[in-house]
Amino acid sequence: MTTSNAIKKVLIIFAHPDRRSLNGSLLDATVKRLESQGREVKVSDLYGMNWKSEITEDDFPETHEKGTRLKVVSESLNAFQHHKLTPDVVAEQEKLKWADLVIFQFPLWWFSLPAILKGWVERVFSAGLAYCLPERYGNGAFAGKKAMVMVSTGGSDTHYSATGVNGPIDDILFPIQHGMMFYTGMSVLPPFVTYAADFLADDKLDSVLEHLDNHFKDLDSLKPIAYRKQAEDYDPKTKQLKKELVGASNEKGFSLHIRKD
Amino acid sequence: MTTSNAIKKVLIIFAHPDRRSLNGSLLDATVKRLESQGREVKVSDLYGMNWKSEITEDDFPETHEKGTRLKVVSESLNAFQHHKLTPDVVAEQEKLKWADLVIFQFPLWWFSLPAILKGWVERVFSAGLAYCLPERYGNGAFAGKKAMVMVSTGGSDTHYSATGVNGPIDDILFPIQHGMMFYTGMSVLPPFVTYAADFLADDKLDSVLEHLDNHFKDLDSLKPIAYRKQAEDYDPKTKQLKKELVGASNEKGFSLHIRKD
Repeated sequence: MTTSNAIKKVLIIFAHPDRRSLNGSLLDATVKRLESQGREVKVSDLYGMNWKSEITEDDFPETHEKGTRLKVVSESLNAFQHHKLTPDVVAEQEKLKWADLVIFQFPLWWFSLPAILKGWVERVFSAGLAYCLPERYGNGAFAGKKAMVMVSTGGSDTHYSATGVNGPIDDILFPIQHGMMFYTGMSVLPPFVTYAADFLADDKLDSVLEHLDNHFKDLDSLKPIAYRKQAEDYDPKTKQLKKELVGASNEKGFSLHIRKD
Repeated sequence: MTTSNAIKKVLIIFAHPDRRSLNGSLLDATVKRLESQGREVKVSDLYGMNWKSEITEDDFPETHEKGTRLKVVSESLNAFQHHKLTPDVVAEQEKLKWADLVIFQFPLWWFSLPAILKGWVERVFSAGLAYCLPERYGNGAFAGKKAMVMVSTGGSDTHYSATGVNGPIDDILFPIQHGMMFYTGMSVLPPFVTYAADFLADDKLDSVLEHLDNHFKDLDSLKPIAYRKQAEDYDPKTKQLKKELVGASNEKGFSLHIRKD
């Protein structure tokens, strides 16, 4: 059913060094699935684009005097406000503004984003656009948009369970889903996780694709993760959870920051 | 007091784009402090070295046929085992082997490592050396070494407290301290955190340096974080915490993986 909240435009940020990988197959299947649902899709293939990963003074060619001290936050804000960011960054920011849903697709390397995707966040989520805002965590520049992680892991699901040796997958993804996506105002849809990807026999790909089909079947009505909003649930001065919310909870760690009702 | 466990050699991996930054001042003060204690120090200044961040097929120039499918784990393992990794990676691995203590020093960008430091981990912690080992989380190639995070944050300490809007700092650092350092066998010393770094007035630097002096005063006897060891506390097959350990605990999330006794 199409509603006014329907996702029409999807941006996929793809961070795998080889399109022939499992991640590449899942990317193709995802694009096909989304387009067959009548949605428009753009893909930023970071390795394919030879994306510059490191934020440096070259990111602010007109507003930063080369060789002078680089203060990343103020330089980033200044360049953004004066429309002097580099063309590669501006092009990604335009795609972000265009998208209703932003997907980060990557293999989980060392429990985080591949460097090239981390660098995309550092350079594209510039000050003034994605941070240094009074509003964040549920509100901000990207409020109204949705976000999703599509990730493959080396370890199996038991390694990433609540008691698994790697730590629970929800908590491992928290710095990404909460700290990068929800921070900027986006609602975060449940992640699509493919476990034990390196050990996945070719004849098991069908079951992964079936899982993918199920995940995207009712995309418009997928319920976002219920992260608590800064504007509603935190003390404006200390940025700590309001006392009445802590008192009622047995939760600890990141899960304290998710609504349970 | 010097014991057989004394830290004699320290490697600092420094990831800030400007040596004139607060991080640069803290680096200089740390090196001075360590050397005055009679320790030898090496610094890998990643921005200064123009470190290549992205793992690509060029990382395996002799063992990977260019243009063929890149399977990162097996390529990395193959190149490592045949001593065919690139000279920049080999040089860092030699420094790692040399060090008794490895310090990651960086500004916390988007709740994680800067891309350039993430890329250092991806390329230097190659398969065969740092992962794909039967032993990990407390044992492995780097067992006997110590590790430490030195990090500056934009937000203040209340934002990173247990109930703070960003999530607790211990949990934010877990994927780094547990997933990158402890994973390879290193014992992880308590982190050195400088909060609200962007808002730190110059006349407050003295108090940060005093904090730094205190942190490093009894370095040899600093007690590591008591992460649970894979070999002792997890089921060998499922890699989940042994049932008797879960039953006795009220903890959830990452903190379940830290000994409380």
